[in-house]
Formats: sequence, C-alpha cells, structure tokens
Amino acid sequence: MQKVNVDALFLGPKSENRDFFKHTLDFMMDEHIHWRRNFHPEDKDAITFRDMHANSFTDTLDRTKEVLQDLSDRLKASSVPWHSPRYLGHMNSDILMSATLAYMATMLYNPNNTAGEASPATTVLELEAGQQMARMMGYNPDNAWGHVTSGGHVANFEALWFMRNLKSFPLGVQVADPDAVAGKSEWELLNLPPDAIFDLIDIMKEKGLLDEARKHSVRYTGMQGAKLGKLIVPQSKHYSWDKSADILGLGLDNFAKVQVGRNFRMDIGHLKAIIEDLVEKKIPIMGVVGVVGTTEEGAVDEFHKILNLREEMEAKGVSFYVHVDAAYGGYTRAAFLDANDAFMGYNDMRDALHAEKVIHKDIDWPSKDVYDAFKAMAKAESITVDPHKMGYVPYAAGMIVARDKRITDLVSYFAAYVWTKGQETGQSMLLGSYIMEGSKAGAAAAAVWAAHKTVPLNINGYGRIVGRSIEATNRFYQSLERQAPFEAGNGKVYEVSTLTKPDFNLVNFVFNEKGNTDLKQMNDLTNAIYGQCSYVDGPVYYDSFLTSHTEFTPTDYGDAPQGLLSRLGFPEGEYEKTGAIWVLRACILTPFLCHNTSYSDYYDRFISIMKKIIAKVSP
Amino acid sequence: MQKVNVDALFLGPKSENRDFFKHTLDFMMDEHIHWRRNFHPEDKDAITFRDMHANSFTDTLDRTKEVLQDLSDRLKASSVPWHSPRYLGHMNSDILMSATLAYMATMLYNPNNTAGEASPATTVLELEAGQQMARMMGYNPDNAWGHVTSGGHVANFEALWFMRNLKSFPLGVQVADPDAVAGKSEWELLNLPPDAIFDLIDIMKEKGLLDEARKHSVRYTGMQGAKLGKLIVPQSKHYSWDKSADILGLGLDNFAKVQVGRNFRMDIGHLKAIIEDLVEKKIPIMGVVGVVGTTEEGAVDEFHKILNLREEMEAKGVSFYVHVDAAYGGYTRAAFLDANDAFMGYNDMRDALHAEKVIHKDIDWPSKDVYDAFKAMAKAESITVDPHKMGYVPYAAGMIVARDKRITDLVSYFAAYVWTKGQETGQSMLLGSYIMEGSKAGAAAAAVWAAHKTVPLNINGYGRIVGRSIEATNRFYQSLERQAPFEAGNGKVYEVSTLTKPDFNLVNFVFNEKGNTDLKQMNDLTNAIYGQCSYVDGPVYYDSFLTSHTEFTPTDYGDAPQGLLSRLGFPEGEYEKTGAIWVLRACILTPFLCHNTSYSDYYDRFISIMKKIIAKVSP
Repeated sequence: MQKVNVDALFLGPKSENRDFFKHTLDFMMDEHIHWRRNFHPEDKDAITFRDMHANSFTDTLDRTKEVLQDLSDRLKASSVPWHSPRYLGHMNSDILMSATLAYMATMLYNPNNTAGEASPATTVLELEAGQQMARMMGYNPDNAWGHVTSGGHVANFEALWFMRNLKSFPLGVQVADPDAVAGKSEWELLNLPPDAIFDLIDIMKEKGLLDEARKHSVRYTGMQGAKLGKLIVPQSKHYSWDKSADILGLGLDNFAKVQVGRNFRMDIGHLKAIIEDLVEKKIPIMGVVGVVGTTEEGAVDEFHKILNLREEMEAKGVSFYVHVDAAYGGYTRAAFLDANDAFMGYNDMRDALHAEKVIHKDIDWPSKDVYDAFKAMAKAESITVDPHKMGYVPYAAGMIVARDKRITDLVSYFAAYVWTKGQETGQSMLLGSYIMEGSKAGAAAAAVWAAHKTVPLNINGYGRIVGRSIEATNRFYQSLERQAPFEAGNGKVYEVSTLTKPDFNLVNFVFNEKGNTDLKQMNDLTNAIYGQCSYVDGPVYYDSFLTSHTEFTPTDYGDAPQGLLSRLGFPEGEYEKTGAIWVLRACILTPFLCHNTSYSDYYDRFISIMKKIIAKVSP
Repeated sequence: MQKVNVDALFLGPKSENRDFFKHTLDFMMDEHIHWRRNFHPEDKDAITFRDMHANSFTDTLDRTKEVLQDLSDRLKASSVPWHSPRYLGHMNSDILMSATLAYMATMLYNPNNTAGEASPATTVLELEAGQQMARMMGYNPDNAWGHVTSGGHVANFEALWFMRNLKSFPLGVQVADPDAVAGKSEWELLNLPPDAIFDLIDIMKEKGLLDEARKHSVRYTGMQGAKLGKLIVPQSKHYSWDKSADILGLGLDNFAKVQVGRNFRMDIGHLKAIIEDLVEKKIPIMGVVGVVGTTEEGAVDEFHKILNLREEMEAKGVSFYVHVDAAYGGYTRAAFLDANDAFMGYNDMRDALHAEKVIHKDIDWPSKDVYDAFKAMAKAESITVDPHKMGYVPYAAGMIVARDKRITDLVSYFAAYVWTKGQETGQSMLLGSYIMEGSKAGAAAAAVWAAHKTVPLNINGYGRIVGRSIEATNRFYQSLERQAPFEAGNGKVYEVSTLTKPDFNLVNFVFNEKGNTDLKQMNDLTNAIYGQCSYVDGPVYYDSFLTSHTEFTPTDYGDAPQGLLSRLGFPEGEYEKTGAIWVLRACILTPFLCHNTSYSDYYDRFISIMKKIIAKVSP
C-alpha cells in the first residue's frame, strides 16, 4: 500500500480540502436519501408536499433553523480552533476527513453496536477495528480482544474490571473444583501468572465448571469479602484511575503509588521496593499500571523494565496483571512498524524514519528507552488507546485491547462458552454482553474503522502523521532550548526554559524574568500568560496563540521538577515553600506546524506574541 | 410556544424533508469552513493548490473515497431501516433532524465536554440539557444535577455509584466526626433517609470535615469491608443492572429480586415481603430500582406504591435510595406536562391529549396506575433516561438526573466544596471531575440540547411525538386483539394473541395454529417468523416487515405469561415443560404508522405479509 499523503487527510487549517469534504459529504448524504426512498418504493410518502404547506410545518422548520443557527453562532464564538497550528495545548488537532465523514454518514443510519441485530453493518467494523488495533500493539489478532469504548476512562475501568475478576478467579476455582488447584495456598492462587489463570479458564470450561467458578469469584460475591490486594500506579497516572478505584469497589486506599523520576517516568527502583514490601507483608498485587504518554508530561513508562521485573518476581512466586494506559500515546506505535506491520529493529527504525522522510534526518527520536518501552507493550495483558487522541478521530472513541480474549469469559453477561457458540463474529454478535457499555454508536466504530482503513497502522500511515507531530515537537523544544534571553517591551529581560526532553510530543515550558528567584512570581507569570492564551480571557477566537498549563506539587511529584528549578536558579526550599510549580503545556498534535509557511516564521511569530503578552500582563 | 408539527421534525420514511436537511447541512458546513478560514486570515494556507497536484495527494484522496464508498455500500446493504413504519422491533425509529444536524455541525468543531476549556461552547449546552431534563422529571432544576452519558448503562452505573457512596457516607461521618451522629447505631446510620444524608454532607462541609468523612467511606476504603446490604431490583430489570453489580463491586449475589405480576410490573406485595425479610435479618437495603418502560414488555413499575412503601418503612426506621430506570420510557413524561411544564391532573391530561389531538379521542391512555407512576417519579433520588431512545436523538446519548446535586460531593474527584468554588457552571466547569466518564463528545450534548430546544419537553413538543407512538401502539394492539383467525395459504388456520395491554408503546404478540397446544411448536413458529423479519435471513433491506422477539422463562418470570398461555389454551405444565415462551416484540416508536397512507391499509398489508411468511415457514 502506498504511503499516505498527510496533507490529503485533513480538512486543513484554512479548510484547504473543503471541496473534497463537501463533495464527498453530499455524495454520502444522497446515498442515504435514496436508500430510504428505495426501501419499498411502493410505499407512499408519509409526508406529502401538501402537508409541507401547513403553517405549523413551516413554523417547526423555522424553529429548527433558529436553534441550529443559534448553535452555529455559539460554536463559532467559543470553539477552540484545534485546526490551527496556533493551537498547542491539549491533545487536540484537526481530525481525519475519512473518520469525520464516516461518522456523519453512518449516523444517518444510526446503528447501535450493542447487538448485531441493531447494527448488521457496523458491529463487524468494530470487531475489525479491534483486530487492527491488536495487531498494531503486537498482539496476535486471532487470540486478542479489542473494541471501541466511549473513551479512555471506560477503557481503563474495563482494564481494572479485567484484572480484578482475573485475580479473583482462582479463588472461585478453589471453591468450584478444589482438585484443579489442589495443594495451592491462597497466596499462591493470588499470585498465579495471568497466563496460568487463562489456562484455568479453559480447564473449567472443559469440565463444565466455568459458571460455578465464576459464581464464587468477585463477580458474584462482590468486593465485600475479597482480599485482592493493591493496584500499583505511578504518581503520574491519569485521574481516571482514581475514579476507577472508587467505581470498581477497590477504594482509593488500595492504591500503591510509585514515584516518578526526573524524566517523569515511573521510578522502577521504587516500583521494585513497593512490590517487595507488599510481598513481605503478604499483600497481593492486583496489577501494575504504567503510562505511555502521561497526560501532563508525555512521559513513556519503561515497560521493558516493568515486565522484566514481573518475570523476576514470578520466579519468586509473585505475579500480577500489567496494563498499559496508552490512551494518549498508543497510536505512536504505528511509527515502529514497517510496511508489513512488523516491529522494526532500533537502528532500522531510525533509518527508516529518516529515509522515508517520516521525520527530518536531524531529529533524534526515539530514544532507546522509549523504543524498548513501545516494544515491550506487547507483553502486557491489556492496553488503553484513544482513537480520539492520536488517532485523529472525532469524539467519542476510546479503545481497549486485551492480549487474550479469554478474559471476556470473566466479565461477559452470558454464562459461558460464548466464544464457541458461534457468536464471536459478525451480525449475531451481542457486543453489549462482553463489554461495560451497552447501546453505543455504530458511527463511532465506523469512524475508527474508516480511519484505520485510510491510514494504515504502520510507518506508511499513522507513522507519517506521528512523524509530523514528533518533528514539530522536537523543533519547538530545540527552539525553546536555544532561545536567547529577550526584552519583552516592558523594560525587563526574560528567559524560557523547558521541563524535560520530550519522550514523545509534549513540551512543558516556562518564561521567567532573568534573575527572578521567586517561584510565586514565575507561577503568576505562567498563569497570566495562560490567561491570554486560553478561554479564560474571553472567546479564544481572538487569541493569537493557544496553549494549556499544568501544575506540579511536591505532594504528587516529589522532586521530579528539580531539574528545571535548578536550571532556573531557584534557591533550595523555594519549591516546597511555594507548594507548586506551574508550567505552560503544549501537546503538539497538529500535522501542520512544520508544514505551512515555514517553521521558523511560525516560531518567530510565537516569540513575538509571547513578548506582547508578557509586556501586557507584567507592565 | 407553538405546538410542534411532528412531520417537520424528521427526515421522513421516504426522505420527504431531504431539501431542508441538505440545505441546512450545507449551511452549517459552510459556517464551519469559513470559521476556519477566518481564524487569523493573515495565516497562509498550510496546503497549497500546488501540493494538491502531487500524485500521492490524489492517491490518498482516492483511497479515502474508496473506503467511504465501501462503507456506504455496507451501510446500505445491511442497515436496519428504522425510518420506515415497516420496522416495529427494538426502540428505534427515525431520528430528529435538529439533533442529527446539531451533532454533525458540532462534530466539525470537535469539542470535548470533559472540561470547559476544551468545550467553551458545549459544556454550557450539556448543563442546560441536564436542567431541561430535571425540569421534565419534576425535579427543581436549581437543586438537581443532570448530564449526558454515553448511554443508559453508564447512567445506571452512575446511579449505583451514587447510592453506594451515599449509603456508606454516614459510616464515614461516624469516623470523621462521631459527634455529628452521636447516639446512632450502625443500623440507624445505614437507614438514614437520603435527604438526611444530604444534610449531613452540608454539616460536614460547614465543619470542614467533608474530605475526612469521604476518606472513611467506601470511596476510599473500597467495598472490601463494607456492609451496605442488598440492591432490590425487579426480575424485569435491564441486564445492565447485572453488569453494574459486578462492576461496582457489589456482586451479583447481593441482588434481591422482586417478581413481576401478570402485568409485568414489579409485584409490590413481594417487594414489601423482601424488605420486611431483610429488615428482620438486619440486612440493610442499599436501594430499590424500578423501571419505567421495561425493555421486553414496556411495563411501568408503580413508583407511587414504591415511594409510599418507603415512607411507611421510614416510620419504622428503615430507608433506602430509590432509582428510576426510565432509559426507555422517560421522555413519555413530556405528555403529562402542560404548555407551562406543569404536571397535569389525570382528567385534565386525558382531556388535553384528546382536545389537542395529541392522541385520537378513542385511545384510552394512560391508565391511572401509569399516570400515578409517572407523577411519583419526581420523588425518586435519580432517574436514567436515554435521549437515544424516546428522545429520537442519534446514538450515543444517555442521561442521568439526580434530585439533589449534593450527591456529586460523594463522587467528585475534587476534594470538596466544589459547588461553592464558582466552578459549577459555564466555561470553567470540569465536568469530567463529577461524572463517571471523561473525554466525551460535545456534539452529543449539542444534539440533545438542540432536540430539547426544537421540541419542548411538554405536551406541545415531545408530548406530540409520544402521542403518535402511543396512538399507533394502541391501534396495533386493538387490531391484533380484534384479528379474526385466518387461513395462511398453507391450508391451516392461525390466531394471533397479545401478551398484555401495553402500559406504554410496546406490544408483544404471537401467532399460533388454531387448536395447537404444543408450546414448542408455537415457539418454533415465532422464531421462524422472526427469522423472516430480521437480519437472520440475509440483508434486512429485502424484508417486508421487521420486528424483534423475546423470551420469557419460568426461572426469570415465574407465571407472569400465564394470562397469554391460558388464553391460548395450553395445558397446565406445558410452559414449565417447554421452559420458555417466545413472543414477537414490537416497540412502536415510529411517528408515521398512523400518519402515512392510512393505518388500516398498513395493518392489512402487515397481515398479508404475515400470511405469506407463515405459509413459507410452515408449508
């Protein structure tokens, strides 16, 4: 398959591809209109032309137009211009035309993917999208399980549901069929490796005891009597994990939190210490969650080390589930796959990225750690990934993929044997029985499917979009690093500093008055700049540059920001005294930052906007 | 406000309103295109006309077109023609033009309602839609809380989250501030009426102890040590409740299930017996869930009796949360509200429905029981209602509304005091911190809002759509009831029978060979007819009539279907022996069944289709 041309994938910052978009939408719309008209053409119109002349008819159409015009006015006045390279804030950007048009067209038919019966066309597409995603993650699509969720939250909840019910299953087996686990202590049962538990599912199925075992697992008994132990998460985890601990009945007290290092990745030494401490106290470990693309820093946790550690611990009779929260960064894995979807060697990959002009040859990415982490993801039990983030698909579309589809036996509504009943694919699939949600938009699944079909999940497709993002991120990071101190027009000189070298596509940065060692003053400046570059100070449509901001506190992040604080020359104790450091935060998803006028023009303009804003907020 | 003209609200069974739809879509599309172009017009195009001549550009556009054409072919081949009055199956129908166009237009701007910052235009619309819904349900919108979810599942999960955390809160207070609940036993704390617990939240807030009390509630401690008791649900509950019990850590063993009567409503006598039994055993009752519009029968549980029973029990020191699962039937409440949104008296309402031609004067609806149930809903703590069902809004849009917004204090991510921090409305609202989900489509909220703005939530708006549905349902029910036995063309005579008089807009029915007393034979016929009227036997586009089917078993439904079985003359024990009765199931949502050619033509055609199908499947 040919390499995609990224310029032809988006409507564009100036609606450059408007003719194509409108023409194609018009075609899809007509397809639907005539589909309705051709369904039993012998049926007469339900609404006649005469009916349409009624005053009340015209009145209702007028009301509809008024409401939609009001909506359009509101959207135009207050929406965030994600499409522009002037927007470098949250993980948003322009979205794929194929996905948007697929969503719109499918919505007209309004399929509901909860059951094949209500979505004969689109349930199939959702299952296919799940397989596509499983393949990209390095799972065997034939054994894996993946589907679309309403977002990363639900995907993460589902992952905790998986690990909770998996952890508890051997205890259910112990009641249903003591022979199957004869001689195993409770501790041993709570430390079976995930693959051993999957095999136990098969054994119970063969014996016809799966239902019985499920009835003595947490699914039926509830968490009331469960002793499933702790969930280990990094301090940098997304807040959906706090919500998951509450919702899934684990409780926030049952987190064990790993510190992050100065690169904002999970501190593997601390992880090991926590695990050893829990083992010593005979507290089971339900699972370990790591992040690929932390939302505030874009850090990539070192899954190769986490999974090695698990192997080490398994030799000592301790095991746990590993989940990858790649809601943000997951699609980046496409850049590591060659045209045949094979994971490339480190040097081959870096060569290919440069040779195929995916990223410019002077951009040094990925680091070996990041590479190893992306490679190792394939060994984790499950992965969250959001098509509505780096998949460039419209909201709402998250995904969960699991390495072993037998996991569904522990969460499905059906009693058992579901995968052997011929319900696994196609039109008779009752998707709602295997997942957290029920009624769901077939249109969202069609959008993800269309995106994956148009943009292959490898270096020829998403790899090229990711490449633009990575290149722009590194250009921006380098420019900030090289930026000389400047006079802002208020008689004062300012410097810019970055938090860390980006693992991925997020840059955190601050402006500080040269010589200032008052952290509160810098934080005030950061927040004042943010006020001028966001919704805070009125409609964003009039802003010249848009970004987001975030906060690090000693409580949550320990001394992780110390590198930046030292470079800025803040005295020791200033951070603890102030209680927080605020930074500007730019997720650079736009494919058009290095591909419009020219990057250096863009950067010069950015700095001149910053000067004006600083002079305005610090007169 | 004028009464809506229902004909002007939908694209129509034969795309009658195609010109309006396309014209308005074109306008909304141009609005967006020029919004992009007008954002900093001084910025140059990122994609030039010259770029568009590259071979790879054309190739990528071609690929996009191929994928979308493939999608369109699949949609046309296999989608279910919800738009046609020939479809009487699941709770699907044509959808509102205003909602569909609002969704499409908003998707172009792709707002994310998880945070006001990412959706300055549409978070406001979601909160407004929540207030609109609260008002329709009889809640005071100023004190209530409502928002859009990805569907009824998540709304139900959120309701269980509410009731679980509310039930557990007084125990947290006991640890954080023993004085506040001095003299109260654990049993008494677990039986505080919901309103007393809401007041306890205020007391803890005033004392600055809310965080501390939350830290000793189930949110932090988890369900491990909790003794929150049972969740009482009717046998007719939706399967999302099974999932909720698993996911929320309650466990399926902690359901107490109430039988349904022959009208398929919760048996209030049995409910009372269960409650008294639990009280005697000193097992707390977390909550009672009832259903407004059971998915398989359209039955409406008698909330007036459930809420009276709670009052009775409160006098004896026993209380519990009450939730209304009105995912399916909730919008029907619009028909009970006058033009000023006031709940009408029983006779006034029936008069108004007839006088304003909402339903034909010979249609006898609602029954007093159904009326009382809809009236009493307003006293329940929370209500699930799906805009993507009787709201005629595209997937995916569910909603949850709660009577008292203080409930959010027990589930919010923020520590406390959130409603007093000025974050409660508008652009700075961090919706994701108060709800189960995170990133979510602003477009879905805009669609619900636009629907409610175009179609008021009272007798002048949704009431008129509901009226068409109710009228068609009653016509269809009456026709089936009056249907004389007929010869099917295979030399045999068949009769048709209905399950019960519909509370609402669902009719279950069966065909049986005259004199047949073999239930299996009738079930086989039902399923064979279903095969010819659904996806089972190939693309539905070639079907002449479409419906769904459902099954009642002695295990789940006791002798509820006995009325039908007796009328059909099945011998005693036949049902238990066969183990199930299958029926055809028609949710009649289409507004066009009594409003196209003429209803009697439609019904005659239906019977002739049935004759052909029966002759085909029973030669």
